[in-house]
Amino acid sequence: MNHKNKDDYISLRGLFPPVPTPFAGNEKLALTHLKNNLTHLNNFDLQGYVILGSNGEFVMLTEKEKIEVLNTARAAIPSDKLMIAGTGCQSTQETVRLTKLAAGIGANAALIITPSYYKRQMSSDVLINHYLEVAKESPIPIIIYNMPACTGIDLTAETVATMAKNPNIIGIKDSGGNITKMAEIMRATGSNFQILAGSGGFLLPALSVGARGGVMALAIIAPDQCQQILEYFQKGDHQKAQNLQVKLVPVNAAVTSRWGVPALKAAMDYLGMYGGPVRLPLAPISEEIKQQLYAILEENEIKKV
Amino acid sequence: MNHKNKDDYISLRGLFPPVPTPFAGNEKLALTHLKNNLTHLNNFDLQGYVILGSNGEFVMLTEKEKIEVLNTARAAIPSDKLMIAGTGCQSTQETVRLTKLAAGIGANAALIITPSYYKRQMSSDVLINHYLEVAKESPIPIIIYNMPACTGIDLTAETVATMAKNPNIIGIKDSGGNITKMAEIMRATGSNFQILAGSGGFLLPALSVGARGGVMALAIIAPDQCQQILEYFQKGDHQKAQNLQVKLVPVNAAVTSRWGVPALKAAMDYLGMYGGPVRLPLAPISEEIKQQLYAILEENEIKKV
Amino acid sequence: MNHKNKDDYISLRGLFPPVPTPFAGNEKLALTHLKNNLTHLNNFDLQGYVILGSNGEFVMLTEKEKIEVLNTARAAIPSDKLMIAGTGCQSTQETVRLTKLAAGIGANAALIITPSYYKRQMSSDVLINHYLEVAKESPIPIIIYNMPACTGIDLTAETVATMAKNPNIIGIKDSGGNITKMAEIMRATGSNFQILAGSGGFLLPALSVGARGGVMALAIIAPDQCQQILEYFQKGDHQKAQNLQVKLVPVNAAVTSRWGVPALKAAMDYLGMYGGPVRLPLAPISEEIKQQLYAILEENEIKKV
Amino acid sequence: MNHKNKDDYISLRGLFPPVPTPFAGNEKLALTHLKNNLTHLNNFDLQGYVILGSNGEFVMLTEKEKIEVLNTARAAIPSDKLMIAGTGCQSTQETVRLTKLAAGIGANAALIITPSYYKRQMSSDVLINHYLEVAKESPIPIIIYNMPACTGIDLTAETVATMAKNPNIIGIKDSGGNITKMAEIMRATGSNFQILAGSGGFLLPALSVGARGGVMALAIIAPDQCQQILEYFQKGDHQKAQNLQVKLVPVNAAVTSRWGVPALKAAMDYLGMYGGPVRLPLAPISEEIKQQLYAILEENEIKKV
Repeated sequence: MNHKNKDDYISLRGLFPPVPTPFAGNEKLALTHLKNNLTHLNNFDLQGYVILGSNGEFVMLTEKEKIEVLNTARAAIPSDKLMIAGTGCQSTQETVRLTKLAAGIGANAALIITPSYYKRQMSSDVLINHYLEVAKESPIPIIIYNMPACTGIDLTAETVATMAKNPNIIGIKDSGGNITKMAEIMRATGSNFQILAGSGGFLLPALSVGARGGVMALAIIAPDQCQQILEYFQKGDHQKAQNLQVKLVPVNAAVTSRWGVPALKAAMDYLGMYGGPVRLPLAPISEEIKQQLYAILEENEIKKV
Repeated sequence: MNHKNKDDYISLRGLFPPVPTPFAGNEKLALTHLKNNLTHLNNFDLQGYVILGSNGEFVMLTEKEKIEVLNTARAAIPSDKLMIAGTGCQSTQETVRLTKLAAGIGANAALIITPSYYKRQMSSDVLINHYLEVAKESPIPIIIYNMPACTGIDLTAETVATMAKNPNIIGIKDSGGNITKMAEIMRATGSNFQILAGSGGFLLPALSVGARGGVMALAIIAPDQCQQILEYFQKGDHQKAQNLQVKLVPVNAAVTSRWGVPALKAAMDYLGMYGGPVRLPLAPISEEIKQQLYAILEENEIKKV
Repeated sequence: MNHKNKDDYISLRGLFPPVPTPFAGNEKLALTHLKNNLTHLNNFDLQGYVILGSNGEFVMLTEKEKIEVLNTARAAIPSDKLMIAGTGCQSTQETVRLTKLAAGIGANAALIITPSYYKRQMSSDVLINHYLEVAKESPIPIIIYNMPACTGIDLTAETVATMAKNPNIIGIKDSGGNITKMAEIMRATGSNFQILAGSGGFLLPALSVGARGGVMALAIIAPDQCQQILEYFQKGDHQKAQNLQVKLVPVNAAVTSRWGVPALKAAMDYLGMYGGPVRLPLAPISEEIKQQLYAILEENEIKKV
Repeated sequence: MNHKNKDDYISLRGLFPPVPTPFAGNEKLALTHLKNNLTHLNNFDLQGYVILGSNGEFVMLTEKEKIEVLNTARAAIPSDKLMIAGTGCQSTQETVRLTKLAAGIGANAALIITPSYYKRQMSSDVLINHYLEVAKESPIPIIIYNMPACTGIDLTAETVATMAKNPNIIGIKDSGGNITKMAEIMRATGSNFQILAGSGGFLLPALSVGARGGVMALAIIAPDQCQQILEYFQKGDHQKAQNLQVKLVPVNAAVTSRWGVPALKAAMDYLGMYGGPVRLPLAPISEEIKQQLYAILEENEIKKV
C-alpha cells in the first residue's frame, strides 16, 4: 500500500461515538434501529463513528453479524464522516481477514484491540509483531485499541511508540485513563501519531497533553457538550472547559465504568434513540438503577433531542 | 433432560490432558497429527481428554475448525474414555449453540470458561445466570472452567457453590491455584460436586482437600508420573507423593505459566509426539529457551516413549 | 555467630499460634491478659508462639510497647517452647536493632517481614540484601515472613531459595497461600529449609508439599484440631485429614481473611480467653457479624476449654 | 479548634516540593544539608514544602529523627512559606500524637497517609473514622495523602468527598494519577476542597480538572519549569503548557516511578544540592543508571543553578 504522511492520510481530530449494536427482544440484530440511531447522530458535529467497539458488543457477534452491522452502518454514515471498524480478534490471521472485509465495506480505518487471552505470553514483542503483521496486510490504516479494563493488557508507552513507527498505524484509542502514559506516548511519538481519549471521563485532561479528541460513549448521549469541551479547550477558556468536564463525570461514569453497556442502551432509550436489550450474559440494569440513571441524566441536563 | 445423580452421571476421577490443536507450518489445522497424538496417549491410564481447552488454542479457531477438531478427536478417542469439549464463548447463545454441536459429535461433557470481556459487569449473579442458562440447554453435563490467568475473572467459592446446585453442572476445573478456595468449594458442595486441579503444579495439594484428579498439560508429557501421584496419595504414602509432586513442579511450570503453549508443543516435539507451531500472535519459544526446556525435561526424567 | 546445621539449630516442626496483643478499653497494653492467654495455651501441644506478628498488631505498637510485650511473653512461655519474635521494620537498621533487643529478651528466632513501603524499589536484589544484612547481624536465626495481603510484596520461590542459602535464615512463614510456590521453594531448597503455612486455610495442602507446620490464628482457637491434622497427615490417613481441614476452612476464614484480627479477638473472648479491643483504625466487628462468628464456631465445634 | 472557611484557612495554590531527608555516609541524619537544600529552594517561587513525605523516607526514621528533621526544616523555611509535615502512622493514636508534635514545631498542615497494613480491614468507614479522629484532635489542618503505589490503598472519590465535609480536612495530595477520580472529587467537593497533584507526570492534566497545584519531586529539580506550567495554564496558553508538560514527563519518571528516591537524590547531587545516600534496604542507583539519569536531565535542560 501507499504509505503517505499520517496526517494527510486521515485526521482523527474530533469525536467518534462508539455505536452500540441494537438487538431486538429475541437478541437478534435490529439493523433498522442501527440505521435510525446513526441518522440521528449525523445531525451533530461528529468526525465519525466507531462500529463494533466494546459498546458495540463486538465479542457477542458472529462474523456474519459483524458484516451485516458494518454494511448497515456504512450505508447510514455520510461519506464525509469516518467509519472506524473494530476488527481485532484473538488470532492474527482472523484479525487480518476481518480487517480486509471491513475495508471492502468502506471502513476508513480499523480499530484493533490487543489480543489478550494468553496474557502471560503477550509480551511487548509479541504484541508489536501482531500489530505490524496486521498493519502490513491491512488496506486501511490501523488504530491501536488499548482497553485494560476488558483485556487485562495495558500497553506501555514504549510499546506504543515502537508500533507508531509503522506508517499504517496512525493512532491509539486509549481507554486506560493513565494520562501520564498519554503524555509519554505524545513525547515519544511526536505530532505525527494521533491519540484519542477512550472515555469521556478524561477528555479534557487528555486534550491537555495532546490528544486529538475521543472515542467515547458519552458522545452518543451528550454530543454537543463533548464538542463544547473541545471548543473551550481550543480557545484556552480553561475554566469553562473544566466546569463542563467536571459536570459530565458522573454522566460518563453511569454509562461506562459504573453500569456499562446496559446503562448506555437504557440512556439511549430514555433520550429517544433505540437502545434496546443487551445480549446475554450481559444483563439489563434493574429498575432501581434505571431511576438513578435517569436522575443523573436530568441533574446534568442531558436531554432528549 | 434427565437429571440423574452427578456421580452416576459421569465420573471425573483421574487425569484429563488438555490436548493441543496441531497446526501445519502454514498455521492450518493438521488433523492427522491430532489423531496420532491421541492414539499415542490412549496407551496411558487416562480417564479422558479435554479438547479445545486453553492448550488447544480454542480462541484462535473458527467455529468450523472447532467442529473439525472435535470430530477428529472423537474418532480417535475410545468410547470408554471421556471427551470433554471446551465450548465456552463470550455470549450465552453462542455457548449454547457450540455445546449442542459438541454433544452431537459425541462429547461427554462441556467445559465452559467464564465469559470475561465485560469484566466489570460479570457479577456473581450474571455469571450464575450464564451457567444456569447453558446447563438448562445443554444435552451433556457442564464443567465450570475457572481460569483467572487468562480471563481476569476468579469465581468465588460461594458463586461456584450456587452453580453446583444445578444437577447438570457436575464439576469445576480450577486453574487458579487457590487451594483454600478449593477446600471452601469442597466444604460448600460436599462430595457430589467434582473438583479437578487445573494445573500439575498443585495436583497433590488439590487431592489433599478432595479434588478427584486434574486437567493439566503435565499429563501430556508425564502421564505415568501424574498417575503415580494419584496412586501414592490414595495409598497414604505421603512422602513418595510429595517427592514426586515437588520434582515435577519445574517441568509443569515450563510448559504452563513460564513459557506456555509454545513450550508444551516444543516438549511434545522433543518427546516424539507432534507439537508443531502455534498460531500468531503466539510466538514459538526461542532456541535458547528450547535448550533450557530440554534440560528441565531431562533433569526430571521426562522421557520419549 | 556459630552457623550450625539448620536442623540442629532449631526445629520448626509443629504449630506456632501468632498471639494477639491484648489492649484494655483505653487501647493501652493489658499485659496480664497476655500472660493469662499464654498460660492457657501452654496446655496444648504447641511447638511455640509468634509474638508481635500481624495478629499481634505489631504495626500499632511503639518500640517501648514491643519490648514490654516480648518480656511478658517470654516470662509466660516455658523454656521448652519457642518464642519467635516479629522484629521486621521498614529500615534495615531498625530491623537489626529490634532483632538484637528481642534476642536479648530470649526470643529463639526472629520473624522478619518484607519491607514494603517503596514497593517499586523492592527488587529481588534489594530484598535479598536486606535479609542477608539482618541475618549477618542477628544473634538468633531468621525466619522470612511473606505476607502479600498486608505488604503487597510476594517473594518469588527463586528469591527465597537465594536467601535460604544463608545458614542463619532457617525458614519461611508463607501466608500467600500459593501452594505451587511452596512446592517450588521445597524443590529449590531441599529438606534443610523449614516452610511454615501462614494460615490454617491451607495447612494440609502445605504439609502435602513438605511444610513442617504452621503459624496460624486458627491454632489459637482450635489448637487440638490443628494438631490432629498434623497427626492424620503423618499417619497417611488422608481422608480424616481432609475432612478436618475442609471443616475448619470457614472457621479459619472468619478469624483471618474475612473479618481479621477484630474477629480473632472476639472469638477469644467467646472461648474464655481475653481478646479485648483492637487499636484504631482497626474497628471491632459489629454485633451482627459477632453473631455470625459465634454461629460458625458452634457449627464447627470450636468450644470453650 | 476554630473552624474557619477552608480557603481563608490556608491556601494550597502552587507548588510544594517533597523534600528528601539527607543522610551522611553512615546513614545518620545530615541536618546541615537539609538546611542548605532548603535555603537553596527558598530562592524559587514555591508555596511551601512537604517534610517527611515519601521522598523524605519517613518510614525509615525513628520518631526522634522525625522531630529533628521538622525542627531543622522549620528553622530554614521562611514564615511566609508553608511547612506541611507528613505525620501519618499505622495507628490512629500515634498519628494524633505525631501531628500534635509537628504542630508544636510550627507545621502549617499535616499530610496524613492512609494506614494500610491491614488492607482487608481498611474499609471506607474505617478510613473515614481514622481521618475524622485525627482531624478532631489536630491543632492544624489535615491534608489527605493518597499513595496507592506505596500503600496498596486507593481512596475512592466518594470516600474522599465524605472526609472533605470535615472543616479541618482541607485537601488531598493524590499520587494515584487517576485524573477521572480527581474530576469526581472536584465534582463532589466543589471549590472549597483543595486538590494537589501528587506527581509532576500529571500536573497539567490535574490543573485542567481543578487541582490547585502539586506536591512533586519534580519541583525540587525543576522548580522554574513547574511554575511555568502553572502560569501557561492560567493564561490559557494550552500549547505551551502542553509542550512543557510533555517535555518533563521522562524527567519526572526518572526521579519517581522509574528509579525512585535514590534517583532523586542522585539528581540533586548532580545539580549542586546535597542528595547523598538512601537508607537501607533502599539501594543507590547503579553507575549505569546514573549515566542514563544525567543524560535525561541534560536532554531536557534541567540545569545546575
